[in-house]
Amino acid sequence: MKYFQMNEAAVEEYVKSVGLFSADAELVTKEVGDGNLNVVFIVKEDKIGKSLVVKQALPYVRVVGESWPLTIERTKFEANALEIHSKLAEEFVPKIYHRNDDLAIIIMEDLSHLGLMRHGMIQMKKYPKFAEHISTFLADTLFYTSDLYLSSEEKKKMIAQFINTELCKITEDLVFTDPYFDAESNNINPNLRPYLEEVFWKKPQLRLEAAKLKYKFLTETQSLIHGDLHTGSIFASEEETKAFDTEFAFVGPSAFDVGKVIGNFLINYVSWSGKEDAPEKIKDYRSYLITSINDIYNLFVKKFKANWEKDAKDIITKIEGYQESYLDYMFKDALGFAATVMIRRMHGLAHNLDVDGIEDLEKRKEVQIQILELAEEIMMKRNQFNTIEEVTELVLQKIN
Amino acid sequence: MKYFQMNEAAVEEYVKSVGLFSADAELVTKEVGDGNLNVVFIVKEDKIGKSLVVKQALPYVRVVGESWPLTIERTKFEANALEIHSKLAEEFVPKIYHRNDDLAIIIMEDLSHLGLMRHGMIQMKKYPKFAEHISTFLADTLFYTSDLYLSSEEKKKMIAQFINTELCKITEDLVFTDPYFDAESNNINPNLRPYLEEVFWKKPQLRLEAAKLKYKFLTETQSLIHGDLHTGSIFASEEETKAFDTEFAFVGPSAFDVGKVIGNFLINYVSWSGKEDAPEKIKDYRSYLITSINDIYNLFVKKFKANWEKDAKDIITKIEGYQESYLDYMFKDALGFAATVMIRRMHGLAHNLDVDGIEDLEKRKEVQIQILELAEEIMMKRNQFNTIEEVTELVLQKIN
Repeated sequence: MKYFQMNEAAVEEYVKSVGLFSADAELVTKEVGDGNLNVVFIVKEDKIGKSLVVKQALPYVRVVGESWPLTIERTKFEANALEIHSKLAEEFVPKIYHRNDDLAIIIMEDLSHLGLMRHGMIQMKKYPKFAEHISTFLADTLFYTSDLYLSSEEKKKMIAQFINTELCKITEDLVFTDPYFDAESNNINPNLRPYLEEVFWKKPQLRLEAAKLKYKFLTETQSLIHGDLHTGSIFASEEETKAFDTEFAFVGPSAFDVGKVIGNFLINYVSWSGKEDAPEKIKDYRSYLITSINDIYNLFVKKFKANWEKDAKDIITKIEGYQESYLDYMFKDALGFAATVMIRRMHGLAHNLDVDGIEDLEKRKEVQIQILELAEEIMMKRNQFNTIEEVTELVLQKIN
Repeated sequence: MKYFQMNEAAVEEYVKSVGLFSADAELVTKEVGDGNLNVVFIVKEDKIGKSLVVKQALPYVRVVGESWPLTIERTKFEANALEIHSKLAEEFVPKIYHRNDDLAIIIMEDLSHLGLMRHGMIQMKKYPKFAEHISTFLADTLFYTSDLYLSSEEKKKMIAQFINTELCKITEDLVFTDPYFDAESNNINPNLRPYLEEVFWKKPQLRLEAAKLKYKFLTETQSLIHGDLHTGSIFASEEETKAFDTEFAFVGPSAFDVGKVIGNFLINYVSWSGKEDAPEKIKDYRSYLITSINDIYNLFVKKFKANWEKDAKDIITKIEGYQESYLDYMFKDALGFAATVMIRRMHGLAHNLDVDGIEDLEKRKEVQIQILELAEEIMMKRNQFNTIEEVTELVLQKIN
């Protein structure tokens, strides 16, 4: 079937044609997508209470328009990664019902009973099971797609299957390159510009560390990573956690996913400095965030180790000291990646509503500078930290 | 054309059928291959003084036999790599005249006026231009196939083109795994066995460092590497240097090729301890080897830097301190890989004639232990060395 951009009517016809609804079903279809890249429809048959999501890739970047073309190939990467995640971490990803790579559509479970985690966190919503859930998701997806578990043959096939050039390029540019100089793609709060020009862009050491992390992103094929695991790619409630939007998936540095989660929690943590909520409420929520960050990391390591003990295949995984050395590298890398993510969300192309929700540009700037300074300190000191508690202790000392 | 194993007559018919010789040429064809994996024919037409080499892959490992199957796919990797090397380092590789992936043959320049470098070095032959040549080969092939020069799109295509699972697996097992324990594949001098059992295999720190290097080999996609650049993969004379046998090529850690060259020079250096030649001749040849090692590394760095200054594309390559940090990692990795190569050639599956030419097993054992101890020291101290001279100084102190 030749690609065409679907509207509501086409979506309804299609879901019936592939047997997901009966031919005479009375459907209600709504476009709901607010992502950067795609269109998303929810299709419902009220009579039987059934609903599902149809996601279609457009041949350009949705937020920018046709001037930024992007092939619809990305749906293949998204669906391939989602299928692997469904096997490794079924509980934490949407069910996939159907895919059509020609039309660039994936039809999957409707998760609208859950909210986007980013929106919840902006409203001080707590997710008591999130640390438990995301640590399992990370430990299982990152361990079971690494050389620790896969044979080198399986691993190399996976590398070949996920040569995701276009989407990797977006990360290479927008996360690791453009925020470190006055690039056209940057989206800069005018009040922040003087700080960037006079301070932030004049830090050769910071740029050097970011360059090393970019190089890791370009050359380290450790695990199949989600590739965009921020709080806007996660649906959650008090009971459930679902990671989606895997079009950035490729075989890259394992710590990138871990760092993205931590970086997004830290952005939310600092963002309260610019908000009007009662100090005791902020204090309480921040304390929840700090506990969450510690738990996410520590549980991740605990579960990754358990997978290792149970299922590591390669003989080198049994060598005394190897696990410790492996996890130590991963920890330092995760902190580095967390820092790069915090930085890119301040003045790169795509921001977080956690901070951009602060309407007063001067106040927003103050928060942005706090986040940039915190990120810088984490990046520059990452090889000196040994535990996640040492990092969160630093956060508490600097911003409270 | 369906694959079949060629004999002399089939080779002659084939080279005529593709127009490399005229239909009525009187050809003389000889099988000359002494490699581990393939058959090699030299075809000559004496009347016009023309000759060429036909290399055909067998569907199994030649030295082991049909019990170790290996797909003929490897010819594709070899020819693809050779084509890239021909563009980047034409002077230092054989000319390729014809390829047929179905028959798994490559027809190339006859280099029999040159000798195998390994054989020459066993006879104390000096190669006054080798350091100049191989450093250019390494700097050009490793720089121009890295992210420093290629766009991430070109680089990722290259990764996909060189998913060389089978041959990588051989290196993973035979270089990085089996020599560190009593594996069946090892080929052990019986006199050396007690040392291995009582000393060498009881070194957890050494195994840990080897494991880290194996992991780099598995996960670092830095450059298109030759993958098997020992002195048996190089034809040379006083004037010429030609690197061949690229079937192990894949996108891996750049330092692996550099380390293989250095490791093979060090094996030859130590091997003289077990030989009968006059001490002053040994001293002179060893002094030549030390100078060569220093020159190879220093010229490589100088030329790699020059390529970087001239042609580095990625903006991160301009960041202050990045080049220094990049080269420092590469140096330490090269030393680590040199050490693994020295170790695998002592008691792994494939040995070097430099040492196995010592017929007295007790004398051979003494040399093997010297090499294993030197390799261990280089491996364990690699992060403390800053210049190649510091390494060769250690060699001179230990073995003279």
